[in-house]
Amino acid sequence: MRVFEIGEFGLIEKIAALIKNKSNRNADSWKSLLIGVGDDTAAWKSSERIELITTDILVEGTHFRLSYTGWYDLGWKSVAINVSDIYAMGGKPQHALVSLAMPGLREVANVLEMYEGMIDMCNKYGIAIAGGNISSAENVVINIVLTGVAENNLMTRSSAKAGDLIAVFGYPGLSAAGLKAIKDPLNMDADSLKLFKQAHLHPEPRLDSGAMLAACGVKTAIDISDGLHSDLGHICEASSVSAVVNSQALPAHPQLKRQFPKEYIDMILTGGEDYELLFTAPRRVMDKVIKAIHPAPTIIGEITSGKRGDIVILDDSGILIIVDSRGWDHYKRAPSNG
Amino acid sequence: MRVFEIGEFGLIEKIAALIKNKSNRNADSWKSLLIGVGDDTAAWKSSERIELITTDILVEGTHFRLSYTGWYDLGWKSVAINVSDIYAMGGKPQHALVSLAMPGLREVANVLEMYEGMIDMCNKYGIAIAGGNISSAENVVINIVLTGVAENNLMTRSSAKAGDLIAVFGYPGLSAAGLKAIKDPLNMDADSLKLFKQAHLHPEPRLDSGAMLAACGVKTAIDISDGLHSDLGHICEASSVSAVVNSQALPAHPQLKRQFPKEYIDMILTGGEDYELLFTAPRRVMDKVIKAIHPAPTIIGEITSGKRGDIVILDDSGILIIVDSRGWDHYKRAPSNG
Repeated sequence: MRVFEIGEFGLIEKIAALIKNKSNRNADSWKSLLIGVGDDTAAWKSSERIELITTDILVEGTHFRLSYTGWYDLGWKSVAINVSDIYAMGGKPQHALVSLAMPGLREVANVLEMYEGMIDMCNKYGIAIAGGNISSAENVVINIVLTGVAENNLMTRSSAKAGDLIAVFGYPGLSAAGLKAIKDPLNMDADSLKLFKQAHLHPEPRLDSGAMLAACGVKTAIDISDGLHSDLGHICEASSVSAVVNSQALPAHPQLKRQFPKEYIDMILTGGEDYELLFTAPRRVMDKVIKAIHPAPTIIGEITSGKRGDIVILDDSGILIIVDSRGWDHYKRAPSNG
Repeated sequence: MRVFEIGEFGLIEKIAALIKNKSNRNADSWKSLLIGVGDDTAAWKSSERIELITTDILVEGTHFRLSYTGWYDLGWKSVAINVSDIYAMGGKPQHALVSLAMPGLREVANVLEMYEGMIDMCNKYGIAIAGGNISSAENVVINIVLTGVAENNLMTRSSAKAGDLIAVFGYPGLSAAGLKAIKDPLNMDADSLKLFKQAHLHPEPRLDSGAMLAACGVKTAIDISDGLHSDLGHICEASSVSAVVNSQALPAHPQLKRQFPKEYIDMILTGGEDYELLFTAPRRVMDKVIKAIHPAPTIIGEITSGKRGDIVILDDSGILIIVDSRGWDHYKRAPSNG
C-alpha cells in the first residue's frame, strides 16, 4: 500500500494509532502532556524551570540515502541527534514533534517502520511524541523538534576557561568509519563492519550523560555532530579561548586503529556525527566526573588563553600536527587553523 | 555572493547578526530567553502555565515556487502559518526555531531577505527567534517550530457540542484566489490581483484573535489551513458531531464574488491556506464574541448530532449542495461526504 492510496489523513490515523499503542506512557513527559497528536498544537503543563528546545533536519541525499539507511534506523537516528543536543545542555528530553515530507509513492509500511524506530528511541529516553505534520515532497525530509527540561545548571558553549581540562566520552570517529564501511565494505571483517555501521546508522546518546555532567558541576559542553575538532572550535569561539589537544591522548577504538592505521587520528578529529559529549571543566570537577560516571570520559587536552578559536594539536613529542579539515560544514570545508 | 562561498558558519554569523540588530527585544519572549541562537539548544525560563508547541514545513515545489514567491514573503509566511496554529489553541506565540535546507548556490542576500520577513513577522507578533539550523539540500525547505503559552482555557478541536453555532473570521477563499491570480493574472483588475496575492503570499493572522476568543469562553477552534469544509470536518471528527452550513451565510468578499461568480462558494469552502480562525460556541458565548471583537466573525451554521464528521451544506432554500472536494490533502483529494 502506498501513501497516496490512503492520503494524508489516512496515514496520520495509522501513525497516531502506532504512537498510542507502542509508546511507554509511564514517562513524566507523557504524564505532563495535555494535548498530543491531533490538534493545532501540542500542549503540556509546565512549572518553574528551564525549558529547552532544539530542532534538526534530515534530508534524503544530504544526510542519508535510503540505499543504505533502513527506515527503522532513520526514525531512530532522527530523534537521537536531537537527544544529543538536549544532553549537551545538561537537560532531559521531554516532547517530540515530527515534520515529515516525502513522495506519495512511498510505502505506508516503510513510514510506519520509521515511526517504530522513533517510538523505540523515545521509549528508551523517556520522550513523548506529541505532534507533527505530513506533506508531500520529491525527497524524504524529516524535521524533529525536541523539548527538554533542565535545572538551574545549564551547560553552554560559552563558559570554557583557560586551564579547564577537555574531555570526551566514547570513541569519536566510529561514525565516520561507518560511512566509509558502507561505501567500501570489501576489506573489512564482519565485526568491524557491524561496529562502524551501527555507530553511523543507529547512534545511542549515552543515557543521562548530560544531566550527570551538569550535576557534577560541569559548565561547558557540546555534542560532537560536526566533528571533535570543529565542535571544540565552536566552544573556543563562543568562550573566546583557545585549546591544545594531545593527539596521543585521543580515545582510539582498537578496531578503528586497525582498519584505518594511517587515517584514524584524522577520523577521530574530523569525522562528525558521533553524538558523544565533549566538555571542559577545572581539574577538581573533572576528578569528580571521572569518579562518578562509568565508563569514564577521556581527557584529551586543555583550554588555553591563546587566540580565540585556535586549536593546536600536538603529537607525543610536542610537535604540531596539521589537521586536514575542521570537520563538517554544510557548504564548504574550511581550511585548518594549523 | 553565494552561500557556498561563505559556508554554513559564515551564513549563521550573518543571520545571527541580523536577528540581533532587527529584533524588537522588548517582547516578553525575548526577556524570558536564557539561551538564543548559537548553542546546542535554546532555553527559556518557564513558570506554572501551559506550554504550546507547533511545527510546520514549507517545501519548494510543494508549498511554494520561487518563481512567484518573494524571499521576504516566504520568511513571513513560514512564521505566520505557525502563529495561526498557536492562536487556534488560544495561546500567545513565544519562541521560534528555524530549520533551513537549501542548495549552496543560493544567494546570501536572498537568505537574509527571507530572515527579514521572519523578523518583521516576529516583531509584530511578539516572537523571539531563538535558534535553528542550516544544511544543504536540492530544494529549499523551511521548517519552523513555534512555542506559545496559554492560560487554563485552551481551545481544542474536540470540544464542539450539538447546538453550538459555527463562525469564522475574515474572508476565506482569498488565498485560493491568490494562487489562481498568480497562475492566470490576465483577466483581473489590479486591485483584486493585489488583494488576492497578498492573501496567499503574505497572510496576517488576526492579532491576538485566539486569546480573545478563549477569554470570551470559546472552547472549540481550528485555523483554516486545509480549507473551511475540511477543517470543520476535523472539528466534527474530533468532537464526534456533525454540522450544517448555510452557504448563503458564508462571508464572500465582494471582489472574490465578482471575479469568480461561479466558483466563489467552492473556493470559500475548500480553498485552504486562509489562516483565519474557525470556531464553535453556544449562542450566549457567540453573542459575547460578536460584541467584543471587531470586525466580528460571521456565523455560518450549527453543530448537529448527526453522523460523526458529516457536513451538510445547504443553500437558501434548504437544498443540499454537493461540494467537489473536502479541501487539501497532501496525497489525495478525498471524495465529498455529500
